[in-house]
Amino acid sequence: MTTTTETNAAGATPDASWAERAAALDAANPLAPCRERFLLPEGVTYLDGNSLGALPAAVPEAVRDGVARQWGEGLIGSWFGEQARWWELPHRLGDRVGALLGAAPEQTVVGDSTSVQIFNTLVAAARLRPGRGVLLTDAGHFPTDAYLADSVGELLGLRVERVRPQEFADAIARHGEDLAVAAFPAVDFATGERWDIPALTRAAHEVGAVAVWDLCHAAGAFPLELDAWDVDFAVGCTYKYLSGGPGAPAFVYANRRHHMQMHQPLTGWTGHAEPFAMHGTYTPAEGVGRARIGTPTILSMLALEAAIGAFDGVDLEVLRAQSLSLTGFFIECCDALLAGRGFALVTPREPERRGGQVTLRHPDAATLVPAAAARGVVGDKREPDLLRYGFNALYNTHADALRAARTLAELCEG
Amino acid sequence: MTTTTETNAAGATPDASWAERAAALDAANPLAPCRERFLLPEGVTYLDGNSLGALPAAVPEAVRDGVARQWGEGLIGSWFGEQARWWELPHRLGDRVGALLGAAPEQTVVGDSTSVQIFNTLVAAARLRPGRGVLLTDAGHFPTDAYLADSVGELLGLRVERVRPQEFADAIARHGEDLAVAAFPAVDFATGERWDIPALTRAAHEVGAVAVWDLCHAAGAFPLELDAWDVDFAVGCTYKYLSGGPGAPAFVYANRRHHMQMHQPLTGWTGHAEPFAMHGTYTPAEGVGRARIGTPTILSMLALEAAIGAFDGVDLEVLRAQSLSLTGFFIECCDALLAGRGFALVTPREPERRGGQVTLRHPDAATLVPAAAARGVVGDKREPDLLRYGFNALYNTHADALRAARTLAELCEG
Repeated sequence: MTTTTETNAAGATPDASWAERAAALDAANPLAPCRERFLLPEGVTYLDGNSLGALPAAVPEAVRDGVARQWGEGLIGSWFGEQARWWELPHRLGDRVGALLGAAPEQTVVGDSTSVQIFNTLVAAARLRPGRGVLLTDAGHFPTDAYLADSVGELLGLRVERVRPQEFADAIARHGEDLAVAAFPAVDFATGERWDIPALTRAAHEVGAVAVWDLCHAAGAFPLELDAWDVDFAVGCTYKYLSGGPGAPAFVYANRRHHMQMHQPLTGWTGHAEPFAMHGTYTPAEGVGRARIGTPTILSMLALEAAIGAFDGVDLEVLRAQSLSLTGFFIECCDALLAGRGFALVTPREPERRGGQVTLRHPDAATLVPAAAARGVVGDKREPDLLRYGFNALYNTHADALRAARTLAELCEG
Repeated sequence: MTTTTETNAAGATPDASWAERAAALDAANPLAPCRERFLLPEGVTYLDGNSLGALPAAVPEAVRDGVARQWGEGLIGSWFGEQARWWELPHRLGDRVGALLGAAPEQTVVGDSTSVQIFNTLVAAARLRPGRGVLLTDAGHFPTDAYLADSVGELLGLRVERVRPQEFADAIARHGEDLAVAAFPAVDFATGERWDIPALTRAAHEVGAVAVWDLCHAAGAFPLELDAWDVDFAVGCTYKYLSGGPGAPAFVYANRRHHMQMHQPLTGWTGHAEPFAMHGTYTPAEGVGRARIGTPTILSMLALEAAIGAFDGVDLEVLRAQSLSLTGFFIECCDALLAGRGFALVTPREPERRGGQVTLRHPDAATLVPAAAARGVVGDKREPDLLRYGFNALYNTHADALRAARTLAELCEG
C-alpha cells in the first residue's frame, strides 16, 4: 500500500501467521475483558465506532429504568427527586466526561448538539476578545464547524480564515493581535490525523487569542489533559468513542478562568443563576452552569450515563496503547494484504500523529465500503474516495483489524 | 373563590353530588378509552402534564426496540437502513406534530431544544425584515423566550420591547414599519391565559412584521390552524401535552412561503442541501430541512414518535371540548370547595380564553403544592404564589379535577 511519500513492499507472511499474531496480541490485551461491556452483533466486525459507538451492555436497563420508573412513576418529581435527579444530569455527566478529558470537575456540561455548542462557544470565545477581527479555523474541518464559524463571523463581523493544519501555527503568528479565536479539531475527521493541542493552544495564547477545540474524534479515544494544557474551550460529541448512542448530547468544556466572563448567545433558561425564580432578565449562573442552554434531553442522557460506565477502571494510557496497537496492526495488515490493489494510506504512519481511526484511499471506495459491510466488516466512506475504519480499544480486536484487511483484499480479487 | 373582579358564592352541593357529577361526565367522555394509552401510577392524580406529560404506553417498547435492535444490531446502518431510517426522523416526526398544528406536511421539523429553536427562529425572522428596529415580545413570556429575545436583540442590534398581552395589538400598530418581529406565546405559562393567534398574526402582517409563536402550552392541548392563520413561524416543546418525555426535542414550524428566504444562524450540517457531500460552505436545504441543526437525538425522538401515537384517531375538536369540560369543572369545584380559603382564580373563566391549565393563587402556594402532591395530587408551583394544574384530556378525568379541589380544601382544614 502506498502513502504519498513511500511505498511498502507486499507482505509475504502467510495467512495463518497473521491470524496467529492477531490472536497473540488479543490474548495479551489487558482491556480484553472490556469487550463484555458491549453488546456486539454476532458475526459483525464493527469499525465504525468513530461515527456511532457500539451499544454498551449497561444501556438497555438504564434506559428502561429511565422510561418506566423515572418518567412513568416518578413523573415531574424526577427532575429533583432522589429517584432520578434529572436536573443535575448535565453537570453529573459533564464531570464524568470531563474526567476523560483531563478536566477537573465543574468545568464540563453535557447538553444540546455539537453544532449548537460550537456556535455558542465560538461566540462566547470571540466576545472575550472584542476588537479583534479574525476567527481562524481549519480548512478541512468537519463541515458543521466550518458552517458555524462562517455564521459566527457573519453575526459578529469577524473575518473567517481557513487554513490547512500545516499552516495553523504560522497563521496564528501572522494574525497576531488581530486573532480573536483559533478553532481547530483534535483529529481530522476525514484523514484521522491528530493535531498538537498543547502546542497550538500555546501558540494561540502567545498572541492573546482564545483556543476552541473540537474533540469529537478525541474524547474517549486517547488521553487528553485539557486543564494541564490550559485549553480555553472544547466541544465534542458523545456518540463516537464514548458510545453514548445515536445523537447523544454534546459536551462543552470551559476553563474555569473564563467562567465569570463568558457570555454565550444561547441564554437558555437552564443556564440562569436562578432558573426557577422565573426572572424576566438573564443572569448567568456563576460557574460552568451558564453553558447550559435548553431543557436537557433526559432519555439520551441516561443512555450516555450508562455508556460512560464502560470506561470504569480503564487507564486511558493503556487504552491509548491498545488503540495504537490496533491501528498499527491494521496498517501492517493493509500494507501486506492490500499491496498493489490501488489503496493508499491517508492516516499518518507515525503513532503520535494518529487518533483511533485509519483512513484509506481507493478509487472504488464508494462500492468497497458497502461491499465490505455486506460481508460483516462495517466502516464508512467519506467523499470523494476515502474508506474510514475506526478502532475502539474497549471492544475492537486485532482479529477485527485482520478481518477488515482480508475482506478488502478478497473484494479486490472479485 | 375570588377572581380579581368577582366573588362566587360557596357551593352548597353535597360531596356525594360532586362525585356523581364527575362520574357522569367521565362516563360520557368519548375520549375515555384514550386513558389506556398511558401508564399512570396507581393512586396518583397527575395534573402536571403541562410541564411533563405522563408516559404513553407505547413508549417503553419503542425505546427498547430503538436501543436493542436499531442501535445495538443495526448500528451505523440504522441512519438510512429500512430497519430505522433515523435520518428522516426530524421530518417524519415534524409532519406528525404538524398534523396536530394545522400544518400541511414539509413545514415542520423536530430537533434540538425549544430554547435553541427560539433563538434560531427569531434571528431568521428578523433577517426577513432588514432595516427594521424592533423585536416585540411578551413581558410575561416564559423566561427562556425573554432571555433569547434579548440575546437576539444584542446580536442583531434590535430594540427588544416587552409589553403585556393586553397591549400586543396596540404595540404592533404603534411600531408600524419599524416592527421586525412579534414573538408571543399562544398560552401564558403562568396564568394559563390563551391569546388570539390569528388576530395578532394579522395585526403583525398589517405592518409587514413577522409573527413567531411559542406553542409550548398549545401543541396537543387544543386545535391550531397554523396554515389557515398564515402564521410565519412557530416553535414549541413536545414534552407537555404531546407527552414526548423529559426534555423531548422541540419542533419548529416554518410557513412554506418563507423557506427559500429563511437564513438561520445555526447552520448545522444536517440542514445542508447535501449533508454527506461534506462541502466546505453552507448551502441550505431547499425546504424546511434548512431548519435542521445538529445530529438528531434519536432515542428521545423514538420516544416522541411512539408518544404521538396516543393522538391516533383523536378529533382535536373533541379533545378541546373535553379539555374545557375538565378545566371548567375544576373551576366549579374550586369555586365551591375552596371558597373563603384564600384562593383566587388566575386563569380566565371564559372558556375561549383558556388553554388546558388552571392557575390558582394562594399565599401558601409554596407549601400547598407539595402537600397536595404528598396526598397524590400532582401539580406545580410558579413564583411567587401560583398553583398550576394542567389537564390533558387524553388521560385526565373529572374525578381527577374533583380530587384536586377536595385535596386543597382538606389541606386548608389542616
